[in-house]
Amino acid sequence: MNEQYSNRSFWEGRSVLITGGAGFIGSNLARRLVNLGSEVTIVDSLISKYGGNLYNLDGYESRLKINLCDIRDTSSMEALLYDKSVLFNLAGQTSHLDSMTDPYTDLEINCIAQLTLLESCRKVNPLVRIIFASTRQIYGKPEFLPVSELHKSSPVDINGIHKLSAELYHSIYSKFHDLSTCTLRLTNTIGPRMRIKDDRQTFLGIWIRRLLEDEPIQVWGGTQIRDFNDVDDVLDALMLAAMSENLDAQPYNLGSKEVVNLTDLANQLIRIHGSGKLNLIEYPKTRMKIDIGDFYSSYDRFQDATSWQPKTSLYSTLKRTLDYYKSNLPAYI
Amino acid sequence: MNEQYSNRSFWEGRSVLITGGAGFIGSNLARRLVNLGSEVTIVDSLISKYGGNLYNLDGYESRLKINLCDIRDTSSMEALLYDKSVLFNLAGQTSHLDSMTDPYTDLEINCIAQLTLLESCRKVNPLVRIIFASTRQIYGKPEFLPVSELHKSSPVDINGIHKLSAELYHSIYSKFHDLSTCTLRLTNTIGPRMRIKDDRQTFLGIWIRRLLEDEPIQVWGGTQIRDFNDVDDVLDALMLAAMSENLDAQPYNLGSKEVVNLTDLANQLIRIHGSGKLNLIEYPKTRMKIDIGDFYSSYDRFQDATSWQPKTSLYSTLKRTLDYYKSNLPAYI
Repeated sequence: MNEQYSNRSFWEGRSVLITGGAGFIGSNLARRLVNLGSEVTIVDSLISKYGGNLYNLDGYESRLKINLCDIRDTSSMEALLYDKSVLFNLAGQTSHLDSMTDPYTDLEINCIAQLTLLESCRKVNPLVRIIFASTRQIYGKPEFLPVSELHKSSPVDINGIHKLSAELYHSIYSKFHDLSTCTLRLTNTIGPRMRIKDDRQTFLGIWIRRLLEDEPIQVWGGTQIRDFNDVDDVLDALMLAAMSENLDAQPYNLGSKEVVNLTDLANQLIRIHGSGKLNLIEYPKTRMKIDIGDFYSSYDRFQDATSWQPKTSLYSTLKRTLDYYKSNLPAYI
Repeated sequence: MNEQYSNRSFWEGRSVLITGGAGFIGSNLARRLVNLGSEVTIVDSLISKYGGNLYNLDGYESRLKINLCDIRDTSSMEALLYDKSVLFNLAGQTSHLDSMTDPYTDLEINCIAQLTLLESCRKVNPLVRIIFASTRQIYGKPEFLPVSELHKSSPVDINGIHKLSAELYHSIYSKFHDLSTCTLRLTNTIGPRMRIKDDRQTFLGIWIRRLLEDEPIQVWGGTQIRDFNDVDDVLDALMLAAMSENLDAQPYNLGSKEVVNLTDLANQLIRIHGSGKLNLIEYPKTRMKIDIGDFYSSYDRFQDATSWQPKTSLYSTLKRTLDYYKSNLPAYI
């Protein structure tokens, strides 16, 4: 665990609510905070298409409160919120394609429930520190690289529109209603406990599953450049954001020191695993319309404000992620 | 009426649906289209805080169909939509302050209902040409002037967030689902039939009311620069957008050749009226948080695409607007 960011004196005894807490990032965060002595409550509705998985909290069940509840359930959320010191708002529908075929569910979870949550904070706990996990998705197709926060927001799918609305809600509730919010725009986050059943959370998930099941990795296109953050580096960022009350309400990018194209990434994964193969396939037409080409982001602004920087190499991330799923595969497929 | 844009051969016999059709812009558009021989159906729910006013359609009641219905009423909207050739999507909640005190209503009307409307088009009438009236509000506080479409979208209130979402829905439904949409970002539109009861639609409305009721005009701040379009010029733009299938799905700005600060505008209004006075008052704190400073926009991109330009001077607009309310005041207060 990274001591610089962990700051036990801040987190010990602190009451923390994590929405999406059984999901990939939420569960990793919950585990780390519990180890630092925080009183952690996680909220998750375990919707089968999303990232929530109680196995992610394996071994921690008695050390935190697991509250199954949909963030659209306003009354329950208010009762859970009122006495918390920090809210990590991580719940969300993450599939871009699902948002195009079922825009209403994405609307409810990623947009309406976010407004409701902020109204609830305003009503029952206006002093809670709120950290919202947004996504590079809101930028759409980059006009320049690396993408900084000066880049226009031009989402190319319904999911991106709603994440953008949620960001803007957080920012306006900070400025207008004096809530204490900070938004981080995450790029591709990977690591243990991510969803690997399919590509709903990240394409890397299904790659790892296929590799471990001796199936070829299917790489769409292959030349697209991406950046990746290890989930542990993202936890550092989320915790720093919570501790830094002086941050802007305007969103901050995370990002990586390394970039890689998808073919090279697949080959690196195969090398680490020691076997496997990849099938390069043409980009399907339905996906082409929401493709964004190359993407990587600049995290300079967040680094300037907090000294955060990603510490884990892509190689290490891929290695420890693969190792995790080699030992825990049945719980994730 | 402007013959260049009116193009009777295009509009004669054409079936047109106008949401917000009893409102300011909608009713002016309905009247013009009826005069060109279109088969016009207007949809309005006459919500008392909004711009709908049946008096706006005075004299035209037998020449068009007035269908009272909320655009949130999906089933009725589908039945109204299925056989139309053009949809002018003008319905909306326009008050910035109301959106801050009651964000849910703004969400329902300006965001959710817009998604529903597009889904309905997709389902029952995927070939309908859809013209959406958005607003300069989505830009927020300008970083440069005049504001072109290259400017970032950074809305400063809930209304702006939802109008931005609605724009993005229109753009994505065009790209991904092949609907035929065009969005215009209107700046301050003024003219006969605007709401003057209060400042919910435009501050100029309440100024005119106060002038005609021999009350002083209250000018908040006074140095802020704005641009104004006469509603007739906006009708030209909307109709051109409907006729030009080759336009981008990315929003186009409207704008003016003239800019004016609010104190000068109030004084000009008083001169035209022949009497009146203004009270300069300090910007209230609640409004300061959503103030955007100076704003005026560039309409070069829309002009390049369609040859549209505003033709009415600010003086003429103010004169004919004042004249209209002098003769029709009781219907608007």
